[in-house]
Amino acid sequence: MSKELMWDGLKEECGVAGVIQMEDDHTAELLYFGLYALQHRGQESAGIAVNDGDKTRWHKDMGLVSEVFDNEELEKLTGHIGIGHVRYSTSGESDVENAQPLVVRYRGGTIALAHNGNLVNARLLRDRLEDAGVVFQTTIDSEVIVNLIARYSNEGIHQAIRRSMELIKGAYALVIMNEECLIGVRDPLGLRPLCIGKTEKGYVLASESSAFDVMGAELVRDVEPGEMVTITPEGIQSEFFQSLPRRAGCIFEYIYFARPDSIIDGINVYEARKNSGRVLAKECPVEADMVMAVPDSSIPVALGYAEASGIPYGEGLIKNRYIGRTFIQPTQAIRELAVKLKLSPMAANIKGKKLILIDDSIVRGTTSKRIVETLKQAGAKEVHVRVSSPPVAYSCYFGIDTPDRNQLIGAVKTVDEIRKIIHADSLHYLTPEGLVEALGKPEKNFCLACFDGNYPMELPEKAQQQNGQRVFQRLDKENQ
Amino acid sequence: MSKELMWDGLKEECGVAGVIQMEDDHTAELLYFGLYALQHRGQESAGIAVNDGDKTRWHKDMGLVSEVFDNEELEKLTGHIGIGHVRYSTSGESDVENAQPLVVRYRGGTIALAHNGNLVNARLLRDRLEDAGVVFQTTIDSEVIVNLIARYSNEGIHQAIRRSMELIKGAYALVIMNEECLIGVRDPLGLRPLCIGKTEKGYVLASESSAFDVMGAELVRDVEPGEMVTITPEGIQSEFFQSLPRRAGCIFEYIYFARPDSIIDGINVYEARKNSGRVLAKECPVEADMVMAVPDSSIPVALGYAEASGIPYGEGLIKNRYIGRTFIQPTQAIRELAVKLKLSPMAANIKGKKLILIDDSIVRGTTSKRIVETLKQAGAKEVHVRVSSPPVAYSCYFGIDTPDRNQLIGAVKTVDEIRKIIHADSLHYLTPEGLVEALGKPEKNFCLACFDGNYPMELPEKAQQQNGQRVFQRLDKENQ
Amino acid sequence: MSKELMWDGLKEECGVAGVIQMEDDHTAELLYFGLYALQHRGQESAGIAVNDGDKTRWHKDMGLVSEVFDNEELEKLTGHIGIGHVRYSTSGESDVENAQPLVVRYRGGTIALAHNGNLVNARLLRDRLEDAGVVFQTTIDSEVIVNLIARYSNEGIHQAIRRSMELIKGAYALVIMNEECLIGVRDPLGLRPLCIGKTEKGYVLASESSAFDVMGAELVRDVEPGEMVTITPEGIQSEFFQSLPRRAGCIFEYIYFARPDSIIDGINVYEARKNSGRVLAKECPVEADMVMAVPDSSIPVALGYAEASGIPYGEGLIKNRYIGRTFIQPTQAIRELAVKLKLSPMAANIKGKKLILIDDSIVRGTTSKRIVETLKQAGAKEVHVRVSSPPVAYSCYFGIDTPDRNQLIGAVKTVDEIRKIIHADSLHYLTPEGLVEALGKPEKNFCLACFDGNYPMELPEKAQQQNGQRVFQRLDKENQ
Amino acid sequence: MSKELMWDGLKEECGVAGVIQMEDDHTAELLYFGLYALQHRGQESAGIAVNDGDKTRWHKDMGLVSEVFDNEELEKLTGHIGIGHVRYSTSGESDVENAQPLVVRYRGGTIALAHNGNLVNARLLRDRLEDAGVVFQTTIDSEVIVNLIARYSNEGIHQAIRRSMELIKGAYALVIMNEECLIGVRDPLGLRPLCIGKTEKGYVLASESSAFDVMGAELVRDVEPGEMVTITPEGIQSEFFQSLPRRAGCIFEYIYFARPDSIIDGINVYEARKNSGRVLAKECPVEADMVMAVPDSSIPVALGYAEASGIPYGEGLIKNRYIGRTFIQPTQAIRELAVKLKLSPMAANIKGKKLILIDDSIVRGTTSKRIVETLKQAGAKEVHVRVSSPPVAYSCYFGIDTPDRNQLIGAVKTVDEIRKIIHADSLHYLTPEGLVEALGKPEKNFCLACFDGNYPMELPEKAQQQNGQRVFQRLDKENQ
Repeated sequence: MSKELMWDGLKEECGVAGVIQMEDDHTAELLYFGLYALQHRGQESAGIAVNDGDKTRWHKDMGLVSEVFDNEELEKLTGHIGIGHVRYSTSGESDVENAQPLVVRYRGGTIALAHNGNLVNARLLRDRLEDAGVVFQTTIDSEVIVNLIARYSNEGIHQAIRRSMELIKGAYALVIMNEECLIGVRDPLGLRPLCIGKTEKGYVLASESSAFDVMGAELVRDVEPGEMVTITPEGIQSEFFQSLPRRAGCIFEYIYFARPDSIIDGINVYEARKNSGRVLAKECPVEADMVMAVPDSSIPVALGYAEASGIPYGEGLIKNRYIGRTFIQPTQAIRELAVKLKLSPMAANIKGKKLILIDDSIVRGTTSKRIVETLKQAGAKEVHVRVSSPPVAYSCYFGIDTPDRNQLIGAVKTVDEIRKIIHADSLHYLTPEGLVEALGKPEKNFCLACFDGNYPMELPEKAQQQNGQRVFQRLDKENQ
Repeated sequence: MSKELMWDGLKEECGVAGVIQMEDDHTAELLYFGLYALQHRGQESAGIAVNDGDKTRWHKDMGLVSEVFDNEELEKLTGHIGIGHVRYSTSGESDVENAQPLVVRYRGGTIALAHNGNLVNARLLRDRLEDAGVVFQTTIDSEVIVNLIARYSNEGIHQAIRRSMELIKGAYALVIMNEECLIGVRDPLGLRPLCIGKTEKGYVLASESSAFDVMGAELVRDVEPGEMVTITPEGIQSEFFQSLPRRAGCIFEYIYFARPDSIIDGINVYEARKNSGRVLAKECPVEADMVMAVPDSSIPVALGYAEASGIPYGEGLIKNRYIGRTFIQPTQAIRELAVKLKLSPMAANIKGKKLILIDDSIVRGTTSKRIVETLKQAGAKEVHVRVSSPPVAYSCYFGIDTPDRNQLIGAVKTVDEIRKIIHADSLHYLTPEGLVEALGKPEKNFCLACFDGNYPMELPEKAQQQNGQRVFQRLDKENQ
Repeated sequence: MSKELMWDGLKEECGVAGVIQMEDDHTAELLYFGLYALQHRGQESAGIAVNDGDKTRWHKDMGLVSEVFDNEELEKLTGHIGIGHVRYSTSGESDVENAQPLVVRYRGGTIALAHNGNLVNARLLRDRLEDAGVVFQTTIDSEVIVNLIARYSNEGIHQAIRRSMELIKGAYALVIMNEECLIGVRDPLGLRPLCIGKTEKGYVLASESSAFDVMGAELVRDVEPGEMVTITPEGIQSEFFQSLPRRAGCIFEYIYFARPDSIIDGINVYEARKNSGRVLAKECPVEADMVMAVPDSSIPVALGYAEASGIPYGEGLIKNRYIGRTFIQPTQAIRELAVKLKLSPMAANIKGKKLILIDDSIVRGTTSKRIVETLKQAGAKEVHVRVSSPPVAYSCYFGIDTPDRNQLIGAVKTVDEIRKIIHADSLHYLTPEGLVEALGKPEKNFCLACFDGNYPMELPEKAQQQNGQRVFQRLDKENQ
Repeated sequence: MSKELMWDGLKEECGVAGVIQMEDDHTAELLYFGLYALQHRGQESAGIAVNDGDKTRWHKDMGLVSEVFDNEELEKLTGHIGIGHVRYSTSGESDVENAQPLVVRYRGGTIALAHNGNLVNARLLRDRLEDAGVVFQTTIDSEVIVNLIARYSNEGIHQAIRRSMELIKGAYALVIMNEECLIGVRDPLGLRPLCIGKTEKGYVLASESSAFDVMGAELVRDVEPGEMVTITPEGIQSEFFQSLPRRAGCIFEYIYFARPDSIIDGINVYEARKNSGRVLAKECPVEADMVMAVPDSSIPVALGYAEASGIPYGEGLIKNRYIGRTFIQPTQAIRELAVKLKLSPMAANIKGKKLILIDDSIVRGTTSKRIVETLKQAGAKEVHVRVSSPPVAYSCYFGIDTPDRNQLIGAVKTVDEIRKIIHADSLHYLTPEGLVEALGKPEKNFCLACFDGNYPMELPEKAQQQNGQRVFQRLDKENQ
């Protein structure tokens, strides 16, 4: 799609899934269904690898799950263990060579790995491995991880993974398989989600429990921070490779990324969003005729706000369901028309009304500005913006694609300046306390670094992050 | 998509649009935007024809608007008058040769035509034209219409259209252009919608006013039933070729087809749907914990119901936004999982609750059954289904793709039988009176034939309808 | 392919084929094979229509036969009568809508038609038909022909075709089918070839007998000029609708277009080409070390020349077999390199030698110039060009794509000027008498208009030819 | 293409090319032209990597050079050093991940490598590297080579390559680049060809000198067996890492693989083929009317035979130039027709004649049988087959795709049995002595192992060769 039509926002980078069964009972198809349900976590590439205890076969390509796979491809992927991945991409260039799962042959056989997250010491580990004579063919962190595992593999796969986890730092939910088992690993702070499901014939892993319904599974529990679960068809073995006094679950999973029908670390995402709305209504009440949402993720927030405030909920924006990934580059002169294609105001429902507009976050501010203007052009008398998260003021280094800090409006402008920029009649961001209250767990469970800059671990050296990676790339993406 | 994942429902068949300006000021792009906004009216093929007063150029193909056109194609379509079409297809095989607009050269120059609707005497007119030596290359009604116009064209284009309209019977909203003007025609009963918009530099026509925002236009008025409007950049000339004491606007435009931000024949679609919910709440109240909708079209109905009943509105089903047009054919054994991909129950919000489930219509009943079952599996205590239309019991012959009558559950089962089949705890259909009340205009304005069988005109001979058309087809589609 | 790599030359415009059998015994596949063998006659689009006595099904698209059809498509084309077409295109824009066969429904049923050739009075007939109210959807002559046939069809199909043939003027080899029979028609001068073959189960028609081997057929005879053959599985009925004292078989079929393994109007093409070489050797002997050809069509000529002159034949140019239809647009600076990709000089075989270079024709002269230069750069001492046809000095209006006359080097330059332009040491064109001698039949059998301007019939009015057709076109091709 | 239409024969596996210049003067385009000219050496995948002294960018995909690259892709590949590869594939599965060049980042920067040939100890080296903790992502030998180089890279790139070459055994022509230079390496026996060319602005490398014309280069010399040339824009440095008393140039390059306009190790390929024909004529004369060739590679042989025997050369088979890579799977009943599509007999030129049919080799015998039958059906009185190589009786392990030995008709049947099987009236294979005589150099220069089984080095362990590789593969290709 032309950039003009890309509404700014934060982007989740990946979703992972795994299946292990007694025998090959539609392993690849279950992964296909699971990835389909996780498609919102990454639309750039998709891949599935399946292992029959002997051979590992895989297929991955750029595109949506439905575009990458057809029946013919799935039928070739035979076996009783499998893993899958959908990717948005942050670290590493976006190219088919960087698609996952990454499948490699090492001294112990074949290992396949799918990773959601972002390492903060990947560059350092790469350099060390290169010093030891290792070559790298991709720019993804996963290649670092499999090289570490291969290096320690003479001590057995568990020990090799354990030792590798001790070396890597950052955010990671990993789904790994070899010829014998399916392994799930979650970083010691639990930054990225990963949960375990039980089917009639075995077990599944997925980034979100919302994938379990279509994988024929029921949620057993989350993989715990610092835990490695080794799953065979017979059962689950757990071991903790690291234990920390705090957790740092990504708070944006609840605010925006996860599907509302997911339960992450015991928190019901839909309910959490609705609570945010209730808290917002308390924190900054305003007189209005209607509460409306920027569809789709803010709708539960708006319903909670409406319930708590007594102001009726209504639809004020229609989302075009056919906005695809291709769109012409509109002529400058009529660009303003094109931006209305994605979200159309429901003039009849808006005209003359005082509106409370609920959005989940404001990143650059451009989308919010367009929406408020659109609503006013359609006759809204007042537009009071309520955001179900605090101002995003710091970049994320743990798996979320955020713009550079100087492009984050929450980092460079005051709330009142933002209000003026987006032409809102009033603007209120949910307070960090209110957000934590809505989630119903103590603050020490979450990473709020994007709001307050208190990163739960040391950050990667900035220069490396920005300069190092570009030297090695398949095709120059800069000009695209 | 595999048929297993196709949820049954009625299908609109087409959307049309037209632009005329003083000069070529992004004519093709405006049509592209307009068709994009009308994409919900037809996803099978798309086409645009543009005329510069001398040459007519066009491009059409199978696929979505965003797939059929790119910048390169649009740039070739230069001119100040243009028309466009998106098609779902009912009459005529679905093939690129049947895509519209239809562009033909005749004795008076070039004429391009886009048609939404369905003629009931097309076969008869075809036969007569064939007797006069005419050959047909497509199976679409539009080819009949252009041949009639060409036949009378020595009397001038207006007279030719007028005489042709006197001959054709059925439902039609036509957008026609030649080298001088843009013409809009609506059938004498007004079965299919067509409205006029004003831009800074000219005029536009579209099936729905919801396309006007992105075409830079404001709604002027609807083309009236039996009216032909001839538009030049300077202004609009109106003439009525037929005037009837009643109207028969398709009631399903308000129930389901049209976008909620459209205003059709003076009725605000969103408001009409919300009213339906209010009336439903009055007609058959039931005690419950939550009102929920089958997304997306039933949401305003549910909001109206919630408002009138005082029972809170909540989200109970999540629609997967990535369901595309391709999906694997799932293995029989796990097909039940695949059907949950499109709509996932929000278990946490449903569990233990008595639900009022709002849907816009029940066609075959299979979708409703699946949804009720899904909700109950997710823990719903009771599911009370409320439908914002009366039972669909008769096939449509005026532009809507309905199954054969014996497949319409409303035609062959009683309401109570349907309730049992779909496993609902109670079931109520909005009464015809209630529906009309919700629309706020007397019943004589609408066609309710799909509910009561009172077709507003004589039907085509059945045998012709079913047998005749298959003899001539590009490729045998029967086995697909 | 980028134009830089297109070697100039004359282009045949079409190939046609037909099959009729007792029952459907791989009808579509036989046509596929036949068109594959006729691919050299047109590479732009391909199509097949098959009739089972009741329904007619067809498929056609832009591309090579192997690209347009796959097994799935062929399997849908069931029936015992079928026709096919490959097209290069001259009249009519090149677009899928202009692909053939043209299939239309008319009062008598369905008729499908494939046409090789070019009418000279198409515009006039179009105008007359338009005056009678006929509309045209394509720009191909075939649409004029089917409209004429439909118009007279109440007199029966034979009479209708016969009367239509009396009206149309120009070059045409037609293959027509309806629900009962396969019909072959050839224009009264026999400008374009068409021949009849016999299979075990029926009959076939094809532009060239070289297609018969792969259609399982043996050559019976040519359709005669002015003859219409009506073929049923039982046999062939012949009738002559016009009889002229002369013939005008296209002489370029023998020189260049036809495959060397074809026999056209009793003349063995390979033998004719070899004879040309023998005559050339007699007409203008020169002392040299080696006779070589521009591959592939001139090889037999060179062999004949070598045989007659006693100078040994050798290969001096290698043709790249992977030159496809796509090639990058080379940067200006290195364009000279790219032109060597198609034909590479065999330096080792050329160096220091006096060469006789045989080519079949010189159109614009650019290719000849490049080749002579290439040979000299590779070390050739002398290059004596011998052309197996007289100078092409007049455009063709009967089915061959020739440049405008002012671009024909043979029309604007003397032979000696041409020799200098192409840097040849000597240049000789086969004389018309020599060419006719090589073919072994009297001159009155052939059209030599491209050499002498003696067109065998009145030409179309020039202005119409150049201006009229562009008004109506699918997409503006001019800028491509 | 369906297998039925695949004529059996030996397949070359790869072509390589390299360019180095003072500055980026169309580096990528020159490689594109060069690969285009080398397309006959591999049609499965193509790739180009270009280095600007800082960044390395690359693009590779399945398909022909013309399909893989367009202007847009080439423009992104900026730099003054580049390498390219076309691949047919033997070792390694055929998949995009196995396409070359292989580009990796290692401790010293970036290295890109393109390889023509086949290692015999790749499995062993892989195992050792895996023991050292190396992971493998592809199944191509090149990944083994780059890992070895990376391992020794702290000694500098030259020393690293030198040491790696000491470890690898087999056939290899390598083109390697890093940020500073272009390196060419040829195995100590010179099994695979590689030659050096000089342009105005630098140097080029290519598998065959026939690529130099379109790369704007002139042949300087061959890289010698056991030589490593390091090329900077300033000049060529040579060092020999191994020196053997014999050479083993692949004799099939002269017989069949190489383009006739190439000069390999000082032997003019066209002349060598013509000589083969002369020798054949001496070795086994036969009375006949015409000498003909199986096109295209046997034509010079036939010309040499004709010259030596005095029997005229003529064309007897027409090769269809439009046989592409797609073809329908023909129905069994009419398969015999389809096989004539590729080569059609020129009946008029054959009928009643005694023919000498020249072919370059007989592998399985099926093609020869079909051709002889086709010629006899077309009326040939006698067909005397003369083959310009000895019977192929041993599989190749050095870069040529040969069937298993038991499928080689020369390994399992006597010459007279083969004659009967292929229905020839007489059959003679060129003797090894005659072949060597034709090449004009002593036998110790060539590898004739495919004829006599005298492999120039120890072979890889059979079991490994056949079993080992399949465990690790991207997708199961076995069922395709």
